[in-house]
Amino acid sequence: MTTTFKRVIIENVQPEIDGGRFPIRRAMGESVRVTVDIFADSHDRIAGELKYRRSGESRWQRLPLALLGNDRWQGVFRVDAVGEYVYTVHAWIDPFATWADRLGKREAAGQDPELDLREGAAQVAAAARCATAPDAERLRWFAEFIGGGERTSDRVRAALDPDLAQMMARWPDRSRESTYARELRVRVERALARFSTWYELFPRSCATEPGRHGTFEDVIARLPYIAKMGFDVLYLPPIHPIGSTHRKGKNNRASADPDDPGSPWAIGGPEGGHTAVHPQLGNLASFQKLMTAARDRGVEVALDLAFQCSPDHPFVAAHPEWFRRRPDGSVQYAENPPKKYQDIFPLDFESEQGGALAEALLGIVRFWVDQGVRIFRVDNPHTKPLRFWEWLIGEVKRTHPETIFLAEAFTRPRSMYRLAKGGFTQSYSYFTWRNLKWEIEQYFEILNQTSVAEFFWPNLWPNTPDILPEYLQTGGRAAFIVRLVLAATLSSSYGIYGPVFELCEAEPREPFSEEYLDSEKYQIRHWDLNAPHNLKDLITRVNRIRRTNPALQQNRNLLFHAVGNEEIVCFSKHTDDYANMVLVVVNLDPHHAHSATLQLPVAALELDDEQGFQVHDLIRDTRYLWHAGGNFVALDPQSMPAHIFRIRRKVRTEHDFDYFM
Amino acid sequence: MTTTFKRVIIENVQPEIDGGRFPIRRAMGESVRVTVDIFADSHDRIAGELKYRRSGESRWQRLPLALLGNDRWQGVFRVDAVGEYVYTVHAWIDPFATWADRLGKREAAGQDPELDLREGAAQVAAAARCATAPDAERLRWFAEFIGGGERTSDRVRAALDPDLAQMMARWPDRSRESTYARELRVRVERALARFSTWYELFPRSCATEPGRHGTFEDVIARLPYIAKMGFDVLYLPPIHPIGSTHRKGKNNRASADPDDPGSPWAIGGPEGGHTAVHPQLGNLASFQKLMTAARDRGVEVALDLAFQCSPDHPFVAAHPEWFRRRPDGSVQYAENPPKKYQDIFPLDFESEQGGALAEALLGIVRFWVDQGVRIFRVDNPHTKPLRFWEWLIGEVKRTHPETIFLAEAFTRPRSMYRLAKGGFTQSYSYFTWRNLKWEIEQYFEILNQTSVAEFFWPNLWPNTPDILPEYLQTGGRAAFIVRLVLAATLSSSYGIYGPVFELCEAEPREPFSEEYLDSEKYQIRHWDLNAPHNLKDLITRVNRIRRTNPALQQNRNLLFHAVGNEEIVCFSKHTDDYANMVLVVVNLDPHHAHSATLQLPVAALELDDEQGFQVHDLIRDTRYLWHAGGNFVALDPQSMPAHIFRIRRKVRTEHDFDYFM
Repeated sequence: MTTTFKRVIIENVQPEIDGGRFPIRRAMGESVRVTVDIFADSHDRIAGELKYRRSGESRWQRLPLALLGNDRWQGVFRVDAVGEYVYTVHAWIDPFATWADRLGKREAAGQDPELDLREGAAQVAAAARCATAPDAERLRWFAEFIGGGERTSDRVRAALDPDLAQMMARWPDRSRESTYARELRVRVERALARFSTWYELFPRSCATEPGRHGTFEDVIARLPYIAKMGFDVLYLPPIHPIGSTHRKGKNNRASADPDDPGSPWAIGGPEGGHTAVHPQLGNLASFQKLMTAARDRGVEVALDLAFQCSPDHPFVAAHPEWFRRRPDGSVQYAENPPKKYQDIFPLDFESEQGGALAEALLGIVRFWVDQGVRIFRVDNPHTKPLRFWEWLIGEVKRTHPETIFLAEAFTRPRSMYRLAKGGFTQSYSYFTWRNLKWEIEQYFEILNQTSVAEFFWPNLWPNTPDILPEYLQTGGRAAFIVRLVLAATLSSSYGIYGPVFELCEAEPREPFSEEYLDSEKYQIRHWDLNAPHNLKDLITRVNRIRRTNPALQQNRNLLFHAVGNEEIVCFSKHTDDYANMVLVVVNLDPHHAHSATLQLPVAALELDDEQGFQVHDLIRDTRYLWHAGGNFVALDPQSMPAHIFRIRRKVRTEHDFDYFM
Repeated sequence: MTTTFKRVIIENVQPEIDGGRFPIRRAMGESVRVTVDIFADSHDRIAGELKYRRSGESRWQRLPLALLGNDRWQGVFRVDAVGEYVYTVHAWIDPFATWADRLGKREAAGQDPELDLREGAAQVAAAARCATAPDAERLRWFAEFIGGGERTSDRVRAALDPDLAQMMARWPDRSRESTYARELRVRVERALARFSTWYELFPRSCATEPGRHGTFEDVIARLPYIAKMGFDVLYLPPIHPIGSTHRKGKNNRASADPDDPGSPWAIGGPEGGHTAVHPQLGNLASFQKLMTAARDRGVEVALDLAFQCSPDHPFVAAHPEWFRRRPDGSVQYAENPPKKYQDIFPLDFESEQGGALAEALLGIVRFWVDQGVRIFRVDNPHTKPLRFWEWLIGEVKRTHPETIFLAEAFTRPRSMYRLAKGGFTQSYSYFTWRNLKWEIEQYFEILNQTSVAEFFWPNLWPNTPDILPEYLQTGGRAAFIVRLVLAATLSSSYGIYGPVFELCEAEPREPFSEEYLDSEKYQIRHWDLNAPHNLKDLITRVNRIRRTNPALQQNRNLLFHAVGNEEIVCFSKHTDDYANMVLVVVNLDPHHAHSATLQLPVAALELDDEQGFQVHDLIRDTRYLWHAGGNFVALDPQSMPAHIFRIRRKVRTEHDFDYFM
C-alpha cells in the first residue's frame, strides 16, 4: 500500500562531491553558495530553506532559499569556525503564497473572492494556533477580519498585506516537507590554508661560514631575511637522522664520500627515526626555539612527512613485519626498474601488520603535533594507499582541525584529486611545467572554474629541490621573474625553494635533467644571499602586493582575458564586491619584448565604460588611464616582463572632484 | 584501530543518474557503455571487471574492463531482455602483471633477474593452488620451471609467456579487491519504446458519413489508411463516457448545445468512469476487435490516461474524500485563475485517503493492461505528484515491463526530466515550438549529447489537438513538410495528430491562439482524406525511409553540421559501424528558396576524402556525387524544402568495378 506522496522534489544540490562522499573545502570566513533544483507538480508556490550547523552541534542554523529562476534556488552561508560543517535543504509547498497568488489573479479578473477569503481565513487561523506571541494574536485578528463581516475589498486588502505574508512564512505547515536525501559536509580550514606564501630551504646549508653543517640556530639567524621577503611558511626538508647504509654521494652518486651528509629523505639512523632530530641540526629544544623565533616573525614552520626508512632506521630491526622481503630474505628497497634506491626501504601497507604500521605513522604525526607543528608537507603521498591518508588526516583533524597537509603528489590527475578529496589541504600542481599560454589558461580554468575548486587547492612551486624546470634553465633571470609573478598571482598559495630561486640558480646536473647540479639533496651548499641580480627585492614587493590585495588571496575569482599575442597572458582577480581588482599581464617569452592591445570586459568587471579607469602598476608604481577600447601594453623581459595592476575606479565626490579609488 | 586499506579506488562510474537514484534507459538489444575511473597508489598494474545481471537473477555476467588511458576504463554490455538490469565495477591490484612489467624492465637493463624469478614462481604456484584443471597443472609446471634449474634466459622467456599471463589473469588473487559503492540500474524497454511512429485521431470523427458519431468499427475501417502511411502506434484520446454537467460547447464555449459531444477529457458519466467505454464508440468487445485488427496491421493501440473526473464521474459520489471541497461544500473544479474548467474535477492526492486513491488509479491502469493495452499516453502528468508516477509505473512494470508510458508534460525542464527519470518511457518535448536553427541545434544537443539522453526519450509532435503552432498557421504546406521531416529524423520517435496534419489544416480559433478552429476536442468533424495537396504520400515515404535506415532509429548518434545559412539546418545520423548514414538538410524558411554550400566532416563520418561519395536523396530518389569540399544544395519550399540523403560510400570490387554501397 502507498501512503501520501511528498510533492516537492529536491535534486542536484551544488556543491556536492561524488554524491556527498567527500566534503567541500572552505577557509574560515568564506561563504558556501548552495544551489539546488526544487520543484513540484502543478503551479503551487514553494518555499525552501538551507540548514547548516557545525558538526557536533545539535542546533541547525536556517535560512530561506531564494529562487534564481527555472526551478533553481540559492542560499549562502558563512563558515566561521575551523572544523566541519554540514548542510542540507528542505522544501515544502507554501499554500498561503499559492492562495494569495490565486486571490490576486481573481481580484484582477473581477471574480467574486468570497470563497477564497473564507479558505484563506481558515489557513491563517490554523497558523495562529501554531504560532507564539506576538504573531499568534495578530494572525487571529487577520483570520477573523479576512473571514467575514467587513467590506470584501477591505478583506482582500488585508489578505494581501505583506505583513501577513511574512507572518505566514514564519509559521508554515511543514508536515509534508521534503528533505534532501543527504547531509553534505564542509571542511573548514584556517585562513592560512587558503592564503599562504611558502619558503623552502635546507637548514644544513644555512651556516654563516662555508664548510660548517648548518643548525636550527643558523635557521633562526636566517629568519629576518625570509620574513622580510614576506613569506609566512618556512618548510624544512626532513630534519631527522640520516642513514649511512647505501648513503648516496654528491649528485646522487651510488656511493658516498665519508663527509657526504646523505639525503635527508633517507630517514633514520642509530640516533633514531621519524621522531628524532638530526644531531648536527640540533635537538628538540633548539627546534622549539626555532618554532618560537619563527612565530615571532609571523612565520610558521612546516615539516616534511616522508614515510620511508633508511636501512638504519630503528623500525627495520624493531618491526621487520612492516617491510617487504625479497626471496633471499633481504629487505626490499625502493626501486623503479632499472632504477634502484637502495638507501630507502618502503613501508609495506599490505602486510598483515599494516594496521599497526598505520597507527605508528599516526603516532609520528601526533608527536610533531604535540611539538606544536601544524603544517606538514607530505612526500610522495601517492605511493601509499590513498585511503590511508584519508584515515590519518581524519584522525589528526579530529583533535587538531587547524592542521594543514600539503600533498607533494606529482602524479596523474585523478590520484591528485583523490588525495585532496580525502583530506589534503593543499596540493602541488602541474604549474611547474605549464609554460605556454594555452596550457596555463586551460589548466587554471580546470582548477578554478570546475568542481575541482571545491576540494583541490593548488600551491604553486616554480622550482623544488627535485625540479629545476627547463624554462628556468634556459630563460635566464626574466624566466624566474615570469614564473614568480605567475605563481604568486595565479594562486593564493605559492612557494619557492630558496635561496636557489632568488639567486636564479639554473645549472642542471646534466643536459635534459631537471636535477640541480650539486644539489642540496646530497651535499651542503653555501650561498651568497647578496649576489648581484638576485630577486629578493622583487619577491618582497610581489609578496607585499599579495598581502595588500585581497583579490589575490582567493582563486575562484580568476578570469583570463583574450590577448591577440600568444606570448602574453592576461588575467584578473577581484573580490566579490569589486572593491579590489587586480589585473596581471605577463610576457611569457623570456627572450623577446612583446606588445599587445588589451580589450578588457569592462561590463563584467563593473567598470564604467565612459568614465574610464586607472591601472596602477604595483611593481613599478606607475599609473595609466585606460578605457573600454584597446589599451596598449609592451613588456620587455630585459627590464620587467610583467605588470601587476591594481584597477582603480574613478569616483566623483560631492565637490565634483574626481579621484581613483 | 585500522585494518588494511584497500588500495584500489573506483570512482565516477558513467552512466550514473543522480548518484544511482534512478536507472538509465535502454531498448532491448542496445548496449551500455560503462566508463569508470580506476587507480591506486604506486605504479602497480590494475585489473578490473564490469559485472551485470538481470534484476532477480543471482548469477552475474562478468567482463574485463579495458584501459582507455589516464586512469579511465571501459566495458560494454548488451541488454537482451525487457525489464531491469544492474551493473557495477570491481577492480584489484594485478601483482603478476606488475611483476612481469618489472621483470621485463630488469631484463632490458641487463640486471640479474634471479630474485624476481623466484618471486614470480611463488606467485604462479599460489595461483596453481586456486586454479582448476587444465590451468592448475600448467601453472604448476610454469611455477617449477620459472623457479629454478633451467637456464635463466629460458626461465625469463617462460615467465613472460603470453599464455601464462592469460592463465594468471584467469586466477587472480582478488581477496583485496575494491568494489564500487553502488549497483546501478538499467531500465530495459522493448524496441518500440525507442523507435515508434505515432498517429493520433479522434475516433468519433472517423465515421464514413458526416453527422454520425464515429465508432471503433469506423476506426477499424481507417486502419489501412494509417498503416499504409507507416504508423505503428495509434493513439486514441480518452474513450470513456463524457460528463454532461458544465459540458463545454464548440470552440470551448462555456455552455454546450444539446448535440455537442463534450470534451473526451471530461471523463465519467452515469455509464461509468475510467474503465468504461463511451457507448457511442462501442464497448469492450468492439474495443478488443479494434485492438486485434490493429495488431494484424502492425499497429498498436495506445490509450490516454487522464486522471481527472467530470462532475458526473462515479468517483464523485462514491469517493467524495478524493476531491477537494470549497468552503461552501462544493467540489473544487479545475482552475487557473481567472480561467475556470468547471467540467473537470481534479483528484486530491494530498487528501487523507490519497493512498486509496493512488491504488484506485493503479487499478484503472491494470484494467486496461488486462485488456491488452501496453501503451499509455499520460495527460498532464506534471499536475499530479511526481513520486506518484514513479510508484505507479514501477508497479505496472513489475508485472508488465513491456508497458510504454508517454508523458504529455509541456512544463519546465526539470519536471519533464524528473518524470522521465521516474519511469516515463517517452516524453513530449519543446520541439513543437523550436523553429529556428539555433533553437533546434541547442535543444537537440542537450537531449542527445548530455546525460539527459540516458533517461529522457523525446517523442516529437509537430501538432497536437491542443497545439497548432504559429509556424504551421503561417507557413503553408511547406511548413508542414519542414516540421514532418524534422520530427521524423531528429528523433527515433515522433507522432502527428491527424488527419488535420496530413490535410495541412492551419486555421486557429482566433489570432494568436494555438487552438484549432472548430477543434475536435469539442465537436465531431468529418475529413476528406483525399483533399488536394495532402501529405499522405510524403508521410508514407518518410516513414518508409525511417524503417529502412537504422541510423534514424536511434538518437544519440545525432550530429549537427555547420552551414553558412541561418535558414538551412543540416544534421546526420549513422549506425555505430557507419554502415548506414543519413544526412538531412532542411530549409527552415517556408516562404523563400535558400541555398548553401555544405562542408561535411568527412573524417568524422569515415568517408574517403579522395574517392568522394554518393548522396542519394530518398525523398526524390535522385543521386549526387559529393566530395570533401563544398557541396551545393538549393531548397525551394514551393517544391520540396528538405533532403533526406542516404550517404553511400564507394566500394571497389575485386573486378575493379566501383559502386556505391
